[in-house]
Amino acid sequence: MNHETPWLQVPAAPIDDAARRAAEDRQTQLTKPLGSLGRLETLATRLAGMQGTDKPRVDQVQISIFAGDHGVAAEGISRFPQSVTAEMVRNFARGGAGISVLARAIGATLEVINLGTVMELEPMSGVLDVRLGPGTANFVKGPAMDAHQLAKAMNAGRHSAERARLAGAQLYLAGEMGIGNTTAAAAISCGLLGRDPEVLAGPGTGLDPAGVQHKAQVLRRALTLHGSENLSDPVECLRRVGGFEIAAMSGAYLACAQMGMPILVDGFISSAAALATVRICPGARDWMLFAHASAEPGHRLLVEALAADPVLDLGMRLGEASGAATAVPLLRLACDIHCHMATFAEAQVAEAH
Amino acid sequence: MNHETPWLQVPAAPIDDAARRAAEDRQTQLTKPLGSLGRLETLATRLAGMQGTDKPRVDQVQISIFAGDHGVAAEGISRFPQSVTAEMVRNFARGGAGISVLARAIGATLEVINLGTVMELEPMSGVLDVRLGPGTANFVKGPAMDAHQLAKAMNAGRHSAERARLAGAQLYLAGEMGIGNTTAAAAISCGLLGRDPEVLAGPGTGLDPAGVQHKAQVLRRALTLHGSENLSDPVECLRRVGGFEIAAMSGAYLACAQMGMPILVDGFISSAAALATVRICPGARDWMLFAHASAEPGHRLLVEALAADPVLDLGMRLGEASGAATAVPLLRLACDIHCHMATFAEAQVAEAH
Repeated sequence: MNHETPWLQVPAAPIDDAARRAAEDRQTQLTKPLGSLGRLETLATRLAGMQGTDKPRVDQVQISIFAGDHGVAAEGISRFPQSVTAEMVRNFARGGAGISVLARAIGATLEVINLGTVMELEPMSGVLDVRLGPGTANFVKGPAMDAHQLAKAMNAGRHSAERARLAGAQLYLAGEMGIGNTTAAAAISCGLLGRDPEVLAGPGTGLDPAGVQHKAQVLRRALTLHGSENLSDPVECLRRVGGFEIAAMSGAYLACAQMGMPILVDGFISSAAALATVRICPGARDWMLFAHASAEPGHRLLVEALAADPVLDLGMRLGEASGAATAVPLLRLACDIHCHMATFAEAQVAEAH
Repeated sequence: MNHETPWLQVPAAPIDDAARRAAEDRQTQLTKPLGSLGRLETLATRLAGMQGTDKPRVDQVQISIFAGDHGVAAEGISRFPQSVTAEMVRNFARGGAGISVLARAIGATLEVINLGTVMELEPMSGVLDVRLGPGTANFVKGPAMDAHQLAKAMNAGRHSAERARLAGAQLYLAGEMGIGNTTAAAAISCGLLGRDPEVLAGPGTGLDPAGVQHKAQVLRRALTLHGSENLSDPVECLRRVGGFEIAAMSGAYLACAQMGMPILVDGFISSAAALATVRICPGARDWMLFAHASAEPGHRLLVEALAADPVLDLGMRLGEASGAATAVPLLRLACDIHCHMATFAEAQVAEAH
């Protein structure tokens, strides 16, 4: 923590347990065998507790994509050149990326925040430029960023959550783009979970087994350099081995929890940011729903550490909040069922004996 | 087979392999790491092969709910009274049931076909009355239906598929309502898979362990009465231990496959109908997508036998096509991604090295 980020200490908003219990009671009265809609029931009742209402809704959805480059890309840990981060920001803005298509399809508001691509980018509609530098520093050789950059990145996330709140969002999704960011997410996970790099290094965008092994060696060098004590502190961990976009996501999640806005967490990188957030503020966990089990192997450990129960398991590993966006229609159906099904009494249907 | 159902012998339509391969090729060009959208990719390419186009769509969705009562309910194998079948038909028609809400939410056409509730029902908008009797006969004491009733039930399913086709449906969902129908579905599964009742009897709408044990004993009596040779023949199996609604679903699936309409199979009872269909016409399997893994324990064996890979696993066990309807938005997102994402060339994004 430092003087630039006193807001990190604000606790998470409380969940409305009475609203949640009322919603659970309503579920018992709907014309279906008790529990027969499985996760659709518990998603609705959790959202009821978060929104403090018996009739939860997630019609208004905000998707914020945070982009940034990674100095550790110099170690050859990705199959894609670093230029792709900036090229994909353009693709987001032009509507051609996976998340662009998904956001349109689900009627969500999409904003892109450029926290530090290597290449400077021309002004683009839908892209906020808060570039903190030409990517982070290579964390195999020193901290990824200084305290000032970290504070700025986390604030950028916080501001995104505040914009979403002002715009009336009922659900917040964060996503990321950054060549090399599965390496940063794995480093954060190793630091916060105290696990070996071999269990957290994965193929990312498509490394072969030799590439994954090399990635684990790069991670081991970083862990040795920074030390487990530094890396067990969530804020210091984000600064030393994180990325601008991951720190921003963590800040966004924290601000959502402080303001009381439901969060739908995406996959591996998002979950690493979510874990850092929960380590900063344990109450933030109550505001998180987990969209999907990523195909990136390390995600399993983050899911376990967060006691998460992802809604989907579709073998996705794109990032960009794509898994979270894909789960939004299911949350909406859960709310529809909850709000609009008839009760046994209304429908004059006999109950179980 | 009998003289009333010569259409059962018509083979399934062929899949358009060229369209499927073209769709697979398009997936390799979209601006994402290869394979990174997991099931969303394969759902789109399978639909492309079924629809014979590079740009598959499932905007127009038909949901047909088949209702019928079961004589085996007299053996005390359900917690709900038989009157609930008819009461739920009214609930479907009035829009208060789970599937009513889901159908509205996804913009699907919903029709209900009453094949034989114990109670006669007044005419209702949205409900077709093709009642073949006051439920099936108790299959512990004799065949559930005669050959004429079976032919009528399968024809009712076929006609539903034909109506869907005429209305321009791009995807067909069947669902069911019938107190006692997990017992019938378990009996069919035992017959077609040659498995013991203990592995296929489950809680259904909510039996306790003693209830499940009793259900298995009832099933064993039925299997002994009808004999494994009779029950290994799919048509005879449907006649002896099926239900009107299950036979209709099997007929509907078969007609879809013959006409070349993609099918999205729901849960346990639907999968038992799907298995009977595939045993009648192996090529029908190519036209089936599987929506979800049901919480009814026997579903796992049907999934295995059908080499299915359900899209969702949400602990649902309501029936009524509710799991299938819940998966429809994911199929639509898969099509959106496939049709609307930019290629690497279009977006000027560098590919992997």
